[in-house]
Amino acid sequence: MPVSLTLKEQRILRCWSEVKAKSKSHSPSPAMLTKAGVTIRHDFCYLSNPHATELFLKYFRKDLKDREKVRSLVEHYPSQNLALAEKLFTSPLLKGALPPSARGLFVGNGATEIIQAVLQHFTKRKILVSVPTFSPYLEFAPKGVRVSHHQLRKEANFALDLDELVRQVKKEKPDTVVIINPNNPEGGYHFAKNVHSVVKRLKEVETLIVDESFAHFAGAKIESAAPWVNTHQNLVVIKSMSKDFGIAGVRLGYAVMSEKRVSALLQKGYLWNVSGFGEYFLDLLNRKDFLQEYEKTRLRAIRERDAFYSTLSKVKGLHVYGSKGNFFLVELLDGTKADDLMTALLVRHGIYIRPCGDKVGLNGEFVRIASRKGSENRKLMRVLKKELLS
Amino acid sequence: MPVSLTLKEQRILRCWSEVKAKSKSHSPSPAMLTKAGVTIRHDFCYLSNPHATELFLKYFRKDLKDREKVRSLVEHYPSQNLALAEKLFTSPLLKGALPPSARGLFVGNGATEIIQAVLQHFTKRKILVSVPTFSPYLEFAPKGVRVSHHQLRKEANFALDLDELVRQVKKEKPDTVVIINPNNPEGGYHFAKNVHSVVKRLKEVETLIVDESFAHFAGAKIESAAPWVNTHQNLVVIKSMSKDFGIAGVRLGYAVMSEKRVSALLQKGYLWNVSGFGEYFLDLLNRKDFLQEYEKTRLRAIRERDAFYSTLSKVKGLHVYGSKGNFFLVELLDGTKADDLMTALLVRHGIYIRPCGDKVGLNGEFVRIASRKGSENRKLMRVLKKELLS
Repeated sequence: MPVSLTLKEQRILRCWSEVKAKSKSHSPSPAMLTKAGVTIRHDFCYLSNPHATELFLKYFRKDLKDREKVRSLVEHYPSQNLALAEKLFTSPLLKGALPPSARGLFVGNGATEIIQAVLQHFTKRKILVSVPTFSPYLEFAPKGVRVSHHQLRKEANFALDLDELVRQVKKEKPDTVVIINPNNPEGGYHFAKNVHSVVKRLKEVETLIVDESFAHFAGAKIESAAPWVNTHQNLVVIKSMSKDFGIAGVRLGYAVMSEKRVSALLQKGYLWNVSGFGEYFLDLLNRKDFLQEYEKTRLRAIRERDAFYSTLSKVKGLHVYGSKGNFFLVELLDGTKADDLMTALLVRHGIYIRPCGDKVGLNGEFVRIASRKGSENRKLMRVLKKELLS
Repeated sequence: MPVSLTLKEQRILRCWSEVKAKSKSHSPSPAMLTKAGVTIRHDFCYLSNPHATELFLKYFRKDLKDREKVRSLVEHYPSQNLALAEKLFTSPLLKGALPPSARGLFVGNGATEIIQAVLQHFTKRKILVSVPTFSPYLEFAPKGVRVSHHQLRKEANFALDLDELVRQVKKEKPDTVVIINPNNPEGGYHFAKNVHSVVKRLKEVETLIVDESFAHFAGAKIESAAPWVNTHQNLVVIKSMSKDFGIAGVRLGYAVMSEKRVSALLQKGYLWNVSGFGEYFLDLLNRKDFLQEYEKTRLRAIRERDAFYSTLSKVKGLHVYGSKGNFFLVELLDGTKADDLMTALLVRHGIYIRPCGDKVGLNGEFVRIASRKGSENRKLMRVLKKELLS
């Protein structure tokens, strides 16, 4: 039996829809939902590594006992972009994925600022983006720029066929192409060597973006296209730090690109675009103890994601797409509406998942479910079975 | 006798100059200077209200004892721009300086982000800026835009003559004009009614920027051009929150402009441009207890600035310009070089002031000295007299 809502739940869904409309193609923040009268106890909409959040908070709470430390984060201007890039450049985290100097690194106030900056400054005519995908790539294209879709096919499990992508690029001649690896919302992934072969075949594309925001979840070894920026000046590798480190509220991301591009961006702004708290995090990335503990949380998140898949994929009435991100795209096959399932889980159990009705290029009843802590994932499994199978 | 440096101090000055060159027209951050081997004990370069910093830290430390509160600031995406604008809109702080709805408010990751956004999106041909001034207005003009200077004359104490400005605008026909009120670096100020008369006379200017980043220091009553945005859609009022609230590290500012402009900006980005800590501060602005205490720190900073002026302006060999900001432009008349005075105070006393050699439109030996806490101002007075008069 498909999930159905009570009258009260239908009212809450209408209220959610209004809040959602204000947030456009993004999910309303928990604070906005609280205002709409619902309380989130487990946020499976938000994509992050909860163990990494715990780790950050452990260091943050300890370090902020030093009153002068807190004062310096709050009172003074943070360092300028290039000085922040140097902090990132010296971090062992980026070993093997580095440009020749810090001048090829751009530190951003979250990856969305970087996406905005790159599209506004470097995209002139046409951008080709595979869909479904992370919507800012569709929305932030400057005025007058054509947005062209590379439709990922449901029959192929939304996998990105790199040869097909190259064929469309050769035919349509966009000046900007976006590859998200792993992709959001379904978590499709290509190994570095395959991406490299595409980079070599797309030399004529002026700006080739590879977004690796979820790369830390892809596998035990972290792969990156960043080293190829040295030989392919058209390449821009973008990385959110919100997801893997669980610190979306801090706002931090970075990009590896040619020094010429970085200096063009810095010439026209981005002066103090990262807060004192963001700079504090960049300092953490230069501490061995933090990085060692982070690596453990990263591998744990991968293990829990895989365990979650093995149980989630067995639930009757669901089709779960295999994912190298820390989330799953799930199609509802029993007639349940995505919005109804979201509302039922939220109102009855405080569990928030993301209905995907607004995702361009995704037709059908889909939800996206993040992988959280193992215990939370197991709770979601119990609740989901109860709602879908009762 | 002019201040002269020892060989060791000259070496430190060369080192400072290198760090400064990296920071271009801005002051190097305290962290960069520490790397250069000097320690700042009193930062008279940085313009802020130190009492307001204390106040913020008092609330911040208390509220962050709540572990779940810290977690929510760090872990989740902050609210989107429009939701933040609503928080600012409801704050009693903006009473009397409000657009008709929150849709006429743009919340920025510091005022520099807003300056960058406004110039990049709305300035097409030519920008007219009075000099000396805050340099981003000169530097962030988009490619192809001409930057025209309205030179403030030393003979007139760098006061902005509004009639002269209007005459130059009528003659040169820029599409963007910037009025900074109070101005930085000398603190010249015009009352609201005079600014209003200029706004009425410059209807043909497409974007008329009034920057009120230091307006909280101007006098007991806070005046703003913001309400005129309703009748003058070409007006953009920009406000940093770093200075008056002493929270530069948090990165927060806002602008009042037409709803059309706000929505044009939000359509192409600025999605999650303020951190969780910035959102926390916007929540503070809705708390009566915080605002009442803030008002006390604001009036205290004004009193201390005025007391500082009355002693500073009496020192032989200095010409101190009267200021409605929380800083003073000071000309050195005894042959002392601005860089040498800065170095002597820094190395010998840990006191950092800003030499103004890089300020466009300022010829001569000038330093800018912030007004800090009364006790710090008095210490600077003692040290300054010792170095200049011995």
